[in-house]
Amino acid sequence: MKPSFIMPFAGGTLDHVETRRTPEHLKAFVTDKRAQCLVFFKGMPALNDDGSLKFIHPSELIGRDLQDPGPIFLGLNDNIPVFAAGVAHPEDLAPIESFQNMRAIASGLAPTELALAGRAKSMLDWHFTHRFCANCGTLSNADEGGVKRNCPECEAQHFPRVNPVVIMLVLSGDKVLLGRGPGWPEGFMSALAGFISPGETIEEATARETFEEVGIKVNNVQYLFSQPWPFPSQLMMGVMCDAESEHVTLDEAELEAAKWFTKDEVKAVFAKQSDAFARPPRFTIAHQLLRYWIES
Amino acid sequence: MKPSFIMPFAGGTLDHVETRRTPEHLKAFVTDKRAQCLVFFKGMPALNDDGSLKFIHPSELIGRDLQDPGPIFLGLNDNIPVFAAGVAHPEDLAPIESFQNMRAIASGLAPTELALAGRAKSMLDWHFTHRFCANCGTLSNADEGGVKRNCPECEAQHFPRVNPVVIMLVLSGDKVLLGRGPGWPEGFMSALAGFISPGETIEEATARETFEEVGIKVNNVQYLFSQPWPFPSQLMMGVMCDAESEHVTLDEAELEAAKWFTKDEVKAVFAKQSDAFARPPRFTIAHQLLRYWIES
Repeated sequence: MKPSFIMPFAGGTLDHVETRRTPEHLKAFVTDKRAQCLVFFKGMPALNDDGSLKFIHPSELIGRDLQDPGPIFLGLNDNIPVFAAGVAHPEDLAPIESFQNMRAIASGLAPTELALAGRAKSMLDWHFTHRFCANCGTLSNADEGGVKRNCPECEAQHFPRVNPVVIMLVLSGDKVLLGRGPGWPEGFMSALAGFISPGETIEEATARETFEEVGIKVNNVQYLFSQPWPFPSQLMMGVMCDAESEHVTLDEAELEAAKWFTKDEVKAVFAKQSDAFARPPRFTIAHQLLRYWIES
Repeated sequence: MKPSFIMPFAGGTLDHVETRRTPEHLKAFVTDKRAQCLVFFKGMPALNDDGSLKFIHPSELIGRDLQDPGPIFLGLNDNIPVFAAGVAHPEDLAPIESFQNMRAIASGLAPTELALAGRAKSMLDWHFTHRFCANCGTLSNADEGGVKRNCPECEAQHFPRVNPVVIMLVLSGDKVLLGRGPGWPEGFMSALAGFISPGETIEEATARETFEEVGIKVNNVQYLFSQPWPFPSQLMMGVMCDAESEHVTLDEAELEAAKWFTKDEVKAVFAKQSDAFARPPRFTIAHQLLRYWIES
């Protein structure tokens, strides 16, 4: 289904330009007078004073100490080439305090800027943590403006990783089961979630993860909507499902607590009329799933 | 939605035993008299003469030249520990001709055996192609019976990769758009598909891939069902969507041809009353999507 709102981190407007990533095209893009480059420091994008994303021209990066692989080409935005780069010493490009943690700014950025910054962050993080060929251990090279890395030794090709995750509203009548991970801030509760493992479907992963975490069997898994999550690069797939029982057997390595809440209780929390639990932040799919459920 | 059939490669019955993978537990599992191990050679599992999966006891592997990381613990099947191992010289374990290509046997294996072999293949392939730490290039070590690899140098942890892919029935009235990749066997047509990229939802990836491959805008993307695909480890997410136009502009790097077929034409092909195109094999989600569509 299509959510009736813009999912945070989704709604990007970039053309990835998969077919025009030759050295000649890339040179034309990077020297384009209108070209724009997002600058990241330790995974944080630079913002302008008004809270919008700060762009520089890629030529301002010349001669700087850049994070491998240098500026990557994200694509065209309204025909304007857009790049992103991680810098090691950002001080003279932008004030150090202008680099902001993505979670902190997620609710403040315009949706298309948040989508752009999220994609940039996932791509830069992937390059930074995948500099070596997993097949043979050799330092690999970014290619085609950063949409892949090639190994010069064994010739393996590597592509940006996206980890599929299921996140589920486990329902029983008018109640939903929420959980709290170890070390989470006091009172905070969210939807159960887990990584999809090789050899299983979305529906099977939902059932396995729920059973592992709370000992409850579920059925009737229904996909609702998805979200790209750039910490570092997940595809969050939001589903709802029906619990066969309300009896929780907690896996304490995964969860500190799990508790059933009625729709009225969740409504009251979302209306800020109750502090039965602290709701997940607006930029999370957990928030959007719960909002969808209380409004349906 | 839940398909009304068992999706090939899905339907696995293994308990992954995430919480009991300590060295002590693993030792108990591998020495269990009932323990079973699948044997792979070059990504192909060994079969018995009757076409079922061949299992050996893990102790039969002692002293052999195994593929890194040695036997991995897949989990418990009805409380029986199940392992898988890739062997370099299989000749005296099983006749070389008993090792069969997974695609060739997919339609013949019992569903739960196919699911087991698929998960084993994905896990073994991942270990084999991810022996080195992508973060620093050091040889990493399998841990917890093979559900992760740890880097002894930089301490990065690595988990099996699952690549999310959208595969779509692009519809216009009673017609569906099918395509043919370069080098595919003559006459063969299937659903369009593509990898999800960082920063996009399932719905956005569907729209982007369709537009890139055939120049057609789509909307109303609806998730139908998913399939694990062990070549090497994809999560295939089957959707259907509505085309805004039937005018195809082919990306010839991706597709050799794309053509609209009416539901009656597809029905006739599935009933083997027409050779308008060669249908995708039964063990593919493309086959199941088309079958779902003609029956709906």
